[in-house]
Amino acid sequence: MDIATTTINAIRVLSAEAIQKANSGHPGLPLGSAPIGYTLFADHLKFDPTDPKWADRDRFVLSAGHGSMLLYSLLYLFGYDLTMEDLKNFRQLGRTPGHPEYGVTPGVETTTGPLGQGIANAVGMAAAEAHLAGVFNREGFPVVDHYTYVLCGDGCLEEGISYEACSFAGAHKLGKLILLYDDNAITIEGSTLHTFKEDVAKRFQAQEWQVLCVEDGNDIRAIHSAISEAKADTTRPSIIICKTQIGYGAPGAGTAKVHGAPLGEEGIAALKKNLNWDHGPFEVPDQVLAHCAEAGKRGQAQAARWHALMEDYRRAYPDLARKFAAYMDDELPDLENMDGLFAFSKPEATRNTSHMVLNKLAAHIPNLFGGSADLAPSNKSDMKDRGFFSAEDRTGSNVHFGIREHAMAAITNGVQLHGGLRGYCATFFVFCDYMKHAMRLSALMDQPVIYVLTHDSIGVGEDGATHQPVEQLVALRSIPNLKVFRPADGSETACAWICALTGHAPTAIVLSRQTLPQYAGSKKNALKGGYILSDCEGTPDVLLIGTGSEVEQCVQAQRLLSDKGIAARVISMPCMEVFEQQSTAYKSSVIPGDVEARVCVEAGSPYSWYRYAGKHGQIVAMEGFGASAPAKQLFKMYGFTAENIAEKALISLAAVKDRR
Amino acid sequence: MDIATTTINAIRVLSAEAIQKANSGHPGLPLGSAPIGYTLFADHLKFDPTDPKWADRDRFVLSAGHGSMLLYSLLYLFGYDLTMEDLKNFRQLGRTPGHPEYGVTPGVETTTGPLGQGIANAVGMAAAEAHLAGVFNREGFPVVDHYTYVLCGDGCLEEGISYEACSFAGAHKLGKLILLYDDNAITIEGSTLHTFKEDVAKRFQAQEWQVLCVEDGNDIRAIHSAISEAKADTTRPSIIICKTQIGYGAPGAGTAKVHGAPLGEEGIAALKKNLNWDHGPFEVPDQVLAHCAEAGKRGQAQAARWHALMEDYRRAYPDLARKFAAYMDDELPDLENMDGLFAFSKPEATRNTSHMVLNKLAAHIPNLFGGSADLAPSNKSDMKDRGFFSAEDRTGSNVHFGIREHAMAAITNGVQLHGGLRGYCATFFVFCDYMKHAMRLSALMDQPVIYVLTHDSIGVGEDGATHQPVEQLVALRSIPNLKVFRPADGSETACAWICALTGHAPTAIVLSRQTLPQYAGSKKNALKGGYILSDCEGTPDVLLIGTGSEVEQCVQAQRLLSDKGIAARVISMPCMEVFEQQSTAYKSSVIPGDVEARVCVEAGSPYSWYRYAGKHGQIVAMEGFGASAPAKQLFKMYGFTAENIAEKALISLAAVKDRR
Repeated sequence: MDIATTTINAIRVLSAEAIQKANSGHPGLPLGSAPIGYTLFADHLKFDPTDPKWADRDRFVLSAGHGSMLLYSLLYLFGYDLTMEDLKNFRQLGRTPGHPEYGVTPGVETTTGPLGQGIANAVGMAAAEAHLAGVFNREGFPVVDHYTYVLCGDGCLEEGISYEACSFAGAHKLGKLILLYDDNAITIEGSTLHTFKEDVAKRFQAQEWQVLCVEDGNDIRAIHSAISEAKADTTRPSIIICKTQIGYGAPGAGTAKVHGAPLGEEGIAALKKNLNWDHGPFEVPDQVLAHCAEAGKRGQAQAARWHALMEDYRRAYPDLARKFAAYMDDELPDLENMDGLFAFSKPEATRNTSHMVLNKLAAHIPNLFGGSADLAPSNKSDMKDRGFFSAEDRTGSNVHFGIREHAMAAITNGVQLHGGLRGYCATFFVFCDYMKHAMRLSALMDQPVIYVLTHDSIGVGEDGATHQPVEQLVALRSIPNLKVFRPADGSETACAWICALTGHAPTAIVLSRQTLPQYAGSKKNALKGGYILSDCEGTPDVLLIGTGSEVEQCVQAQRLLSDKGIAARVISMPCMEVFEQQSTAYKSSVIPGDVEARVCVEAGSPYSWYRYAGKHGQIVAMEGFGASAPAKQLFKMYGFTAENIAEKALISLAAVKDRR
Repeated sequence: MDIATTTINAIRVLSAEAIQKANSGHPGLPLGSAPIGYTLFADHLKFDPTDPKWADRDRFVLSAGHGSMLLYSLLYLFGYDLTMEDLKNFRQLGRTPGHPEYGVTPGVETTTGPLGQGIANAVGMAAAEAHLAGVFNREGFPVVDHYTYVLCGDGCLEEGISYEACSFAGAHKLGKLILLYDDNAITIEGSTLHTFKEDVAKRFQAQEWQVLCVEDGNDIRAIHSAISEAKADTTRPSIIICKTQIGYGAPGAGTAKVHGAPLGEEGIAALKKNLNWDHGPFEVPDQVLAHCAEAGKRGQAQAARWHALMEDYRRAYPDLARKFAAYMDDELPDLENMDGLFAFSKPEATRNTSHMVLNKLAAHIPNLFGGSADLAPSNKSDMKDRGFFSAEDRTGSNVHFGIREHAMAAITNGVQLHGGLRGYCATFFVFCDYMKHAMRLSALMDQPVIYVLTHDSIGVGEDGATHQPVEQLVALRSIPNLKVFRPADGSETACAWICALTGHAPTAIVLSRQTLPQYAGSKKNALKGGYILSDCEGTPDVLLIGTGSEVEQCVQAQRLLSDKGIAARVISMPCMEVFEQQSTAYKSSVIPGDVEARVCVEAGSPYSWYRYAGKHGQIVAMEGFGASAPAKQLFKMYGFTAENIAEKALISLAAVKDRR
């Protein structure tokens, strides 16, 4: 057996054994696509196993995340900081979770498992590389110059997100993106012929990709030359369709049985026999490790050359080099004291104040990179004087994502994961539904992606129920680690952007279509998430808590109540997550526990508010879907008026009194 | 001007005038694609305007729902129960909302606006037609025999859901599906060339569609012959790529400016001049109405022939005819008293009890039609002895949806909207994110689609955080009009299915991967949404409220507390929405307002529970994401243990006492 075959079999057996030991996992993909993974790592991938964060490394994404053991075996064998104990601990608490998770395992570039996401992440990484190369490379100084590889199965390609992402990649000619398709023609329900009969080559040709085929997925020469060919054409992305056999070598190979269950001890024995593998469990021959170490050394040499190149670059282009470092270190100016960031004088929709803030920030933060799912004029998400990212101009940093919300969010995850850029994206708030899972993954991966979500409520008006978010606020608030801001005015919008940029997790900034007033009391208070926007004299009888556009009606209700001799405090709560992070003392100073008469007001699902309303509080919220009519009419119809809020305050006061 | 042109211009002007009057809306599509709409309605569409629910009508879906005025103009002119006043009332409360809404306007087959959904709905309608034709048609009796047309723009095609749905349609050879593509090469951000450069013809060829082109979207002869050609090939779906000019006739035609804003009075004047239209506002020449009425009469004659055919069919195939009527009337057996539906003796995962229930139901409900996004063996969503729906066997009612969650849900909406079938679909619970918006549309349209969602929590175990739902329960509960069931055992699962089948809105049934006990106290109580599963003697000191798998730990905690002399009541709350519909008396009998010591337990986001916990209650929930490890270990790690629940009960009791 030659060393390549031995190494491939080592990957196969290690993977199968770890899955067997965990008594759960997916052997089908690692067994079938081990030759692809091997060829990539041994012959092509530019990586330094001792420095998995090296900026100019090639990225490798396992989009078919269920095949995680393939990735862990590769990372282990090729010298990353992963031990045999880690492999034996597969799917237990530790560094080798069931699906690859970013930040948990060195060398894992993104969290995958939810199908299709990895492809879109890779598209984002390739876009980031293209943009950074456009900004920083100079003749003789290719300081940003790497490929992005992604391995996927049928599942990823059946998902719409992959279609969206690959269409984007084709349109933007991301020529250093290489998609390795593990074409094993089997899914969980059986043959792909049941429901996935399309001509994948033609599909990718339609999207202007280079299409290459490897007829035998065990033929590493063919894989090698296909990868070489893919690398050679940098004018368009490439897909390599590798015909493989799922579960190669195991009993049940070529069938759905071998996709997602351990092989069993007998199956492992049969696999080893079929592969002529006579080593003990988790035993890897020394020559395999030595062979893999050579690839690692090649990579380390490449890294060393790059560091030398950067030395020269710093001398030749000191300003650019400083800028490059600033991008990579994600340097930020002093945001809170930025000139004019809080200067709002006249009433504006918060989508407009967001536009002003974004553009002020963009002047100081050159590595902002983002755009909209074809709604930039409505989302007000464009950065003026920044140009558009395109095949013709890589230096543009406004992105035409196209009407592809799901891919947009996942591409932006990829942009952010790549490093060097601050990614944001925008759409109508109601369509965050389309990209919910990618937003969840931003949160799971601690990626500070910024989501600009406009047209935030029934305030959308005439577009009707289909375009009016109702349940989306609580849907996003319930995602762990995601901050949701719904600012009431310009200053709160500025705070939302500051929190988004300085945080280490994603932020959704939810903005109005319609004009809102500016409040004297807002300024930087929103940095605390919730605060007293307008207080009464003395102890409040009742608290009016609102967000966004409904703060206005709360302030009006405060006056109505004051006329009746009732002292109401108006609390603006633009971000519950940030408010909850404040000290108990601060929180109690804003929402005193003993003031139980409360009205919570938000044109969204009441689920967000039970927490603050308490037993005797009232909630003015959307209990059903909206309707198509002018916004003002709808606000009245659904009770978002000062009068109704004041009336609810009286009901709450009565309930509290009753109890006493 | 010939009558066809006059009618087309009437459509254009009516649409533009209604948008102008509303002072909001999208004139671009109606102006550009009026000839397509006209040709379809005048020459091809089989419709009876006096009976818009006629079972064998052709379906027409305007997937590009922002072009709603095209549809309303067509429905008005072609004799549906829609008045000129309705058109003048466009985008106000009434029957002509900003985007087409099912159930609001006669002739509107589905709610559209969220892009891509309509295409997938149409695929579902075509699948329903194919299946029903397979079941009911006999030689000489084509009782189910209609086309499904769908008009879309670039936006719909850029969305991944359309790719998924069209891939499904191609694989299943839905030959009576005809997609009319309004190819105007303009989106909101400008030219499609910015980001959507793919060869659409090739894309659809790759998916095994017939591809037809109309080079001039104003050439109604070409449109007519393309539609004829599309109809003639029933072996595969057809797309007709019609090159149109957005905003044809208006100033700014062919640019993004004319997409989504009223033309203004001057623009209307210019439009009329360009079209040689010299009628007053909202004035339609009589000959246009007479011309359109002819098409309506043609349709009424077709309907009359179909009714005559059904008469003969009832004589020739009385059993089949009865069955057909039962399908169409959605007849159900007596579910609550169905033999063995509540017979569960041994511990089972609720995904297994769901499988048993589904299969018992399927034996009595022949029009159940559904499947999984390639997870049937895991979701336990297959109906035994029912066969698979395919091009070769249209009578199968198990569907291989493929790994296409978003399209699956929207296709199922289409199946349900078609009439005659009860649609359901299945995937892992965490991936309801991928189809969230289609689920929202089930709810908005009052469509009783059933969502089978298994692997419902950290109980998924080793697959890790990517596969463990946390926030999904509250995300679904917050959708108005959607019922979310999370059963604790077999009987509760049966109740969930009964509620789902008898309700008039969608239901999500959220099921465990892991084995759960059967409770003596459950039986049919879950039909009330929440109930006392296990009571204490006398007045309870504390309430333990749980759902699904966590009910088990609540019951165990009850014992621990009892040992300490504390009387705890265990409440199972499989469906909050149904519980909240019960009488106040019933609700208070289950959750007495004065028992303020409470522990709410659910392995999901706490947002669901603030409502029931009250001021002094404790919530045992998931505050963050899960992890990859055996499920039992995770439940312990995150506090879902009898011990922790009992401890939290003591804390809550102390808080209540403190207050007193």
